[in-house]
Amino acid sequence: MLESTFLTVSGERLRAVYEFTGPVTDARARAEALRVEQTIEFPADLVPDDDIQSEIIGRIESFDEVGPETVRVEVSYAVETTGSELPQLLNVLFGNSSLLQGVKLVDVTVPPSLSESLGGPRFGIDGLRAMFDAPDRPLLATALKPMGFSPERFADLAYELARGGIDMIKDDHSLANQPFADFDARVRACSDAVRRANEETGFNSVYMPSINAPHSLLDERVQIALDAGAGGLLILPGITGFDFMRNVASRDDVAVPIMGHPAMLGGFVSSPTGGIAHSVLFGTLMRLAGADVSIFPNFGGRFSFSTAACSEISTACLDPMEGINPIWPAAGGGMTMDRTAEMLDFYGNDIVLLIGGDLHRGGSLRENAQAFRQAIQ
Amino acid sequence: MLESTFLTVSGERLRAVYEFTGPVTDARARAEALRVEQTIEFPADLVPDDDIQSEIIGRIESFDEVGPETVRVEVSYAVETTGSELPQLLNVLFGNSSLLQGVKLVDVTVPPSLSESLGGPRFGIDGLRAMFDAPDRPLLATALKPMGFSPERFADLAYELARGGIDMIKDDHSLANQPFADFDARVRACSDAVRRANEETGFNSVYMPSINAPHSLLDERVQIALDAGAGGLLILPGITGFDFMRNVASRDDVAVPIMGHPAMLGGFVSSPTGGIAHSVLFGTLMRLAGADVSIFPNFGGRFSFSTAACSEISTACLDPMEGINPIWPAAGGGMTMDRTAEMLDFYGNDIVLLIGGDLHRGGSLRENAQAFRQAIQ
Repeated sequence: MLESTFLTVSGERLRAVYEFTGPVTDARARAEALRVEQTIEFPADLVPDDDIQSEIIGRIESFDEVGPETVRVEVSYAVETTGSELPQLLNVLFGNSSLLQGVKLVDVTVPPSLSESLGGPRFGIDGLRAMFDAPDRPLLATALKPMGFSPERFADLAYELARGGIDMIKDDHSLANQPFADFDARVRACSDAVRRANEETGFNSVYMPSINAPHSLLDERVQIALDAGAGGLLILPGITGFDFMRNVASRDDVAVPIMGHPAMLGGFVSSPTGGIAHSVLFGTLMRLAGADVSIFPNFGGRFSFSTAACSEISTACLDPMEGINPIWPAAGGGMTMDRTAEMLDFYGNDIVLLIGGDLHRGGSLRENAQAFRQAIQ
Repeated sequence: MLESTFLTVSGERLRAVYEFTGPVTDARARAEALRVEQTIEFPADLVPDDDIQSEIIGRIESFDEVGPETVRVEVSYAVETTGSELPQLLNVLFGNSSLLQGVKLVDVTVPPSLSESLGGPRFGIDGLRAMFDAPDRPLLATALKPMGFSPERFADLAYELARGGIDMIKDDHSLANQPFADFDARVRACSDAVRRANEETGFNSVYMPSINAPHSLLDERVQIALDAGAGGLLILPGITGFDFMRNVASRDDVAVPIMGHPAMLGGFVSSPTGGIAHSVLFGTLMRLAGADVSIFPNFGGRFSFSTAACSEISTACLDPMEGINPIWPAAGGGMTMDRTAEMLDFYGNDIVLLIGGDLHRGGSLRENAQAFRQAIQ
C-alpha cells in the first residue's frame, strides 16, 4: 500500500462517455478498470483512501444499459490530469483504452478552463461566412490534383477554379514535397494564381496548401505558405498529431482558416464496437483542435460512411459548445455535382461541398466551377 | 482528359500489401481503386497513357486469393510519391485507405534510399545490449506511477528501482506536465536519483521521461530531459505523430535510446478486417520511425492482444530489414513477475520485460526489482 497523497485540485472535470460492448455483467468491472487505466494505471488496491483515489482516478458518473450487450458509462476526470494540454487530453480520453476491445469513446465534454486553454477554431462558421461574403449559402471547396503535375500546372488549375468562384482551393492531401512540384514552388505559384483571379473576380477565394511535413519542417512550411500569401492551410492531424493543428490555430500571426483532413484517422472508426465515434473524432476533437473545416467522406461516395455517421458529424461540428466556435463540416470523397441538391437537403446550408475530380469532367474547369457555384446560389 | 505528363523518376519503389475482405469478385476493382486513391485520388479515366498512369499511380504487383473472402494485393509506389518524408510515406501507405471498410495494411517494404533517409533506430538490439552490459539477457523495464505523486516521490521510486537493477525506468505514459509533478522538476529529480543509484550499483540504468507535449514544447522538453541527464526518452507517436519520434532519433545531439509507446494506436488494430496489422504498426512503422524499443500489450494481461499478434510484433521488430536496425519488443500491460519464465519461453531473450504495478506488491520496491533481475539472470 502506498502512503497517502494530498493534492490541491480545482474541482473542474472533463467528461467522457464510453460504450462497452459485451456481457452486461462484466461491464461494471470493465468500467472500473478503465477509470484506473486512463489515469494512474496502477493497482487501485495498493492506493489508500486518499486524494489519488478521490481526485485523480476517473469517477464513474453514470452507468446505463442501453442495449442487450451495450452499456454506456460516463467517466469524469480532474482537469488537472490533462495538464491543460491537448496531447495529454487525448491520452486521458482514450490513450490506453484504444487498445482494449469493445470500448468506444462516444462523447466528450471539456470544462470551460480547458476550452479556454485550447482555444478552438479562429474562424468557424461565422468567420468563414464573413470571409467569403456568404451570409447564408453553403461553401464550395475543391482540391488540386493529380500528383505528378508541375507547380505551373497546379497554378493554372487554381486560377481557373478561383475564376469559377470556388471558395476554398486546397492542395490534394497527397501533395507534400515531392520532386514533381516541391512545396515552395507550388505554394508560391498557386497563391499568386488565386490572388490574380481574385483581383479579376472580386471574390475572396483562398488557396490552402497541405502542411504534411516532417516535425522539423512543419513551422517552416507554415511560414512559407503565409509568406506566399496562401489564404488557408490544410492539416492532417492523423499524421502530424492534433496538437500541431491546435498550435497553428492559436498563433496570433496565423490569421488564416484551417481545414482538417481525415487521412489516417480511419483506423478509429473502422470497428463498430471500438475506436472513437464519428461525431467525436470528426466533430468534437477536430473542433477542440482548431479546425475551421472538418473534412470527412460523404455517404454514397468512394468511402463507406453511413448517413447516420455523416449526420452525427455535422451535428457535432455545429452544436453549441461552450467557448468553442462551431465549425464547417466538409463532405467529400468522390462527390459529384449532380448530388448538390441531395447534399443540401441532407446537411442544410452550413456545409462545405467538397468536389474534386468531377469538376474535370466535360466542359472547361472554369465553366464547371461556375456551374457548381450557380447550383448553390 | 488531362494533357500528358512527362516525369523523371528513379525507378525505386516501396511495396505495401493490403488484405481485402469481402466478395472475391469485387477485390480486383477495389484494388484498382486503392492504387489510385493512395496516389492521385483523381478519376483514372481522365488521365492519358502517360507517366502519371505508369509511374505515379500505384502498381498492382500481385493479387492472391488467400481465403474464401480474403485477397492479398501487393501494390508498389514510386519512392518519389513520398517525397522521402515519413508523414507522406504514412499517407501513401494508408492515409485515405484507412477510411475504407475491409482493407487492412499487412506488410510494408521500403527501398534502400528511403531506409537511408528515415534512418531508423540509433541503438536497436545491439546498441542497448552494449549500453546495459547485457550480452544475452532480456532487458528489464518499469514505469513510474501513479499520477498524483510529487517529483520527490517519483525520484524516490526511481532511485529504488535503479538500485534494484531495472535497466529502463520510464515515466508512466500518463505523466505529461501536470501540476502534481511538473515536467521540469520531475525530470531533474528522477534523472538525479537514477544517476546517484548508478554510482552506487555500477549499473547503467536509465530514466526515460515521457515527451508527450504540445507541438511548440516538444523540442524544449527533449532539451530539458537531455540537460537533466535523462538516459532515454519515452515518445507516444500515436499522439505526437510518428515523425516527431523519427526526428528525435535522427538528431546527432540526442544520443539516448527511445521507447515508443502505443497510446492511441489501438484504433488501428481494433478491427480484424481493417486498420493496420500488429506487425506493421508495432514492428515495421515503429522501427522505421526510430524507436529502439516498441511497447505493446502482452497476451494475457489487461489488454487483449493474442499470442499470434504478440509473436508477429516480435518478429517484425527483430527480422532483418535492409538499412534499419532490429529493435526491442517490449511486452507490458499488467504483467506480473510470476510470468517471467513463460514470457522468456515465448519471446526468447530479445525482449524487454515491462512490469509496473506488480513490483509494488509485497516486499520493498528495491527487493522486488532485485528479484525481477535475478529471475532473468
